[in-house]
Amino acid sequence: MKNDLAIGIDIGGTNTVIGVVNRDGKCLQESSIKTGLYLGAEAYVEALAKEIRQLEETADFNSKIIGIGVGAPNGNFHTGSIEFAPNLNWKGVVPLASMIGAKVNSPVVLTNDANAAAIGEMIFGAAKGMKDFIVITLGTGVGSGIVVNGELVYGHDGFAGEIGHTVVDPDGRLCGCGKKGCLETYSSSKGIVNTVIELLNNSEEPSLLRKHTISEINSLQIYEAACNNDKLALEAFEYTGKMLGIKLADAVAHTSPEAIILFGGLSLAGKFIFDPVKKYMDLYLLPIWRDKIKLLPSQLNENNAAVLGAAALAFKQFS
Amino acid sequence: MKNDLAIGIDIGGTNTVIGVVNRDGKCLQESSIKTGLYLGAEAYVEALAKEIRQLEETADFNSKIIGIGVGAPNGNFHTGSIEFAPNLNWKGVVPLASMIGAKVNSPVVLTNDANAAAIGEMIFGAAKGMKDFIVITLGTGVGSGIVVNGELVYGHDGFAGEIGHTVVDPDGRLCGCGKKGCLETYSSSKGIVNTVIELLNNSEEPSLLRKHTISEINSLQIYEAACNNDKLALEAFEYTGKMLGIKLADAVAHTSPEAIILFGGLSLAGKFIFDPVKKYMDLYLLPIWRDKIKLLPSQLNENNAAVLGAAALAFKQFS
Repeated sequence: MKNDLAIGIDIGGTNTVIGVVNRDGKCLQESSIKTGLYLGAEAYVEALAKEIRQLEETADFNSKIIGIGVGAPNGNFHTGSIEFAPNLNWKGVVPLASMIGAKVNSPVVLTNDANAAAIGEMIFGAAKGMKDFIVITLGTGVGSGIVVNGELVYGHDGFAGEIGHTVVDPDGRLCGCGKKGCLETYSSSKGIVNTVIELLNNSEEPSLLRKHTISEINSLQIYEAACNNDKLALEAFEYTGKMLGIKLADAVAHTSPEAIILFGGLSLAGKFIFDPVKKYMDLYLLPIWRDKIKLLPSQLNENNAAVLGAAALAFKQFS
Repeated sequence: MKNDLAIGIDIGGTNTVIGVVNRDGKCLQESSIKTGLYLGAEAYVEALAKEIRQLEETADFNSKIIGIGVGAPNGNFHTGSIEFAPNLNWKGVVPLASMIGAKVNSPVVLTNDANAAAIGEMIFGAAKGMKDFIVITLGTGVGSGIVVNGELVYGHDGFAGEIGHTVVDPDGRLCGCGKKGCLETYSSSKGIVNTVIELLNNSEEPSLLRKHTISEINSLQIYEAACNNDKLALEAFEYTGKMLGIKLADAVAHTSPEAIILFGGLSLAGKFIFDPVKKYMDLYLLPIWRDKIKLLPSQLNENNAAVLGAAALAFKQFS
């Protein structure tokens, strides 16, 4: 019997990474193209399909590629399209799954990056064996994938799972989406930078971060300052975690998950983010859930977590 | 072929209503017992089972009772138990479904009252034909039932769907659950009364409601004042709807429903509550959802909506 393989594709604003993944969640081969190099979707898909065909051809005799999974910003599972993605060159609705499918030999399925991460955790990572859980991706933005009874929640239009755009403060920070006070403006890597800038401006607190110009400050420096016990950096993590914790308590009140998994970016700051998230989540949970919801780090290899997620989607869809 | 019937049981703090319902959602027979009359769960179940057996026996020759559905506060679908219900005489965990099942001829299924309302809307009411929707029950408290892909969301422990206990304001009003700032403290009939009391205390605005003592004011009087164009009453509805609208935008960001259905209590105030809910929900929705999420009134007959919901649960479970 042949070994089943899946191709996982992670479309980011800068790079598109393509990997061949086996059923154990091991990435056997990987390549990439520059997403931004191609002005039109047609030219991009042509270049992507070329990479895929090469990977299809080099798969060894004993293996079989069962399908292709794509994780992309604003990817819609129902339609297979990328719809109005702000960080990509192509505007409007791009039916990417069918465009790729027309040029390769394998079936293609597409979803957004956070949903792909959730399926990755379910098949290969921290949510193995779980039927109800939520994955929160903490990158430049805040994404989420919600799993209920073993199935990803896509909703009526395919766009469910936008916890990053729930409201922390109706009169709060302006979000890239045009709304005010979205969680994403507080608990993303960009959010914690804005919190640090506010703290630097509004206090005289000495801080290692004062040596940087405001345009230089990034979340890694904030993490390093926190490791050095910098009070202002610790305060920024506390605030970032508080906002996330309160909104995760809300998320639990919706779908009552067994666990919430923090993925990527800020989640790598460990206790600096996990401790305040857990504290405030428990404080705003109904007593029936207090101390019961597991808060876990991702267990996908961080070097190719997104590719593993996309490949997991293909395994789930085409197995 | 015999006509299928289901028995629906709505357990409230004061009355327990038992009805025989046909597949068209018509309640053919109804009776009730006083919930609070029985100190122990055993005595209560004995009285309830007696009513059920009478209804079973009087069902006509051409009919068949396929099962019994129970909607109860803090009812857990997974366990069939009522768990720590604050408004009932029995404390702790009461395995009500199995206790009833032991004394009658039909199978028994149990869930909480808001989940029963959601299944009622799906089978008999405003959500017929929908696969993704949310029902919000606006009574003394605020309950919710979330349906994803045609199935009620119960979550890992059976307690999903507590949108009434999501956080409007982390430092806000004290809720009966012990937390601060829950939606329920703003957008329930009790919440709007508290809003009116705050408005009366903090302004000199003339109002029809000033003729009542504070302990007398109820949501019906506020509704009647609003009908008479009372500015303070209108302001209270606006505020109540704003809080609910913002949290419904959050709910949409979780499961992306086709519609949200407002059920019971304050929802009967019509435009006074629907208009601000819709306005603020749309304001805090991502652009992809704006003006797209239907906000609907319940279409279950309000006289026995809860019984219809409980019977719908039985039809769904035992058909």
